[in-house]
Amino acid sequence: MSPATEQEISRNNRAFEAAVAARDMDALAAAYTADARILPPGGEMVSGRDNIRQFWDGAIAALNVASVRLETLSFEAAGDTGYEVGRATLHPAGGGPSMQAKYVVVWKRQDGAWKWHVDIWNASA
Amino acid sequence: MSPATEQEISRNNRAFEAAVAARDMDALAAAYTADARILPPGGEMVSGRDNIRQFWDGAIAALNVASVRLETLSFEAAGDTGYEVGRATLHPAGGGPSMQAKYVVVWKRQDGAWKWHVDIWNASA
Repeated sequence: MSPATEQEISRNNRAFEAAVAARDMDALAAAYTADARILPPGGEMVSGRDNIRQFWDGAIAALNVASVRLETLSFEAAGDTGYEVGRATLHPAGGGPSMQAKYVVVWKRQDGAWKWHVDIWNASA
Repeated sequence: MSPATEQEISRNNRAFEAAVAARDMDALAAAYTADARILPPGGEMVSGRDNIRQFWDGAIAALNVASVRLETLSFEAAGDTGYEVGRATLHPAGGGPSMQAKYVVVWKRQDGAWKWHVDIWNASA
């Protein structure tokens, strides 16, 4: 990918990490497009940024997540659509064992900004 | 998507379903590109058609899958890349309760044929 795209992808992912650490749900939701969909394990698909915001608000509390780290393994763009394959590491509050997940994110560039449009993940163990 | 693309997408998915029902691992593997990746829940990523073939051979036996049905909820193509969001229903041999999953597949058109290039799924309950 181009250096500019790489920078934007990384910026969006780092902003998500910062939002989780700060439990800043507005900033977290801003990582997604308005009509994004997430496909969380063990539940139904969640559609739309507001519903996604609610999902994460509940999930971060339920899993007691202190922070998350995203690692992009590959990213490929075709026009204004891209897809990323990556790994996520979730660190629980209180220092318990971290959780490893892997994910695929379909990205969309809207109004010049790359955002998450479809987000699916599962546990690695 | 164009009717031709829709037909090809459907054909590949129906071929996968038929391959699972017949436990025809060569036909199953042919749904994927040679350098495809799958991200199965509870395990590490599996790369390459031969390794994916082996994974499914073991998983279908372990889960005692008699048949699978794939339902495309959305498909969008940009050039020779596409992405699909869908639901899968797995029917175990012996008539036990079916399992519901959801998935995202990144498709690639190679030599004129659309194939699965990245495949990730998780349970819906």
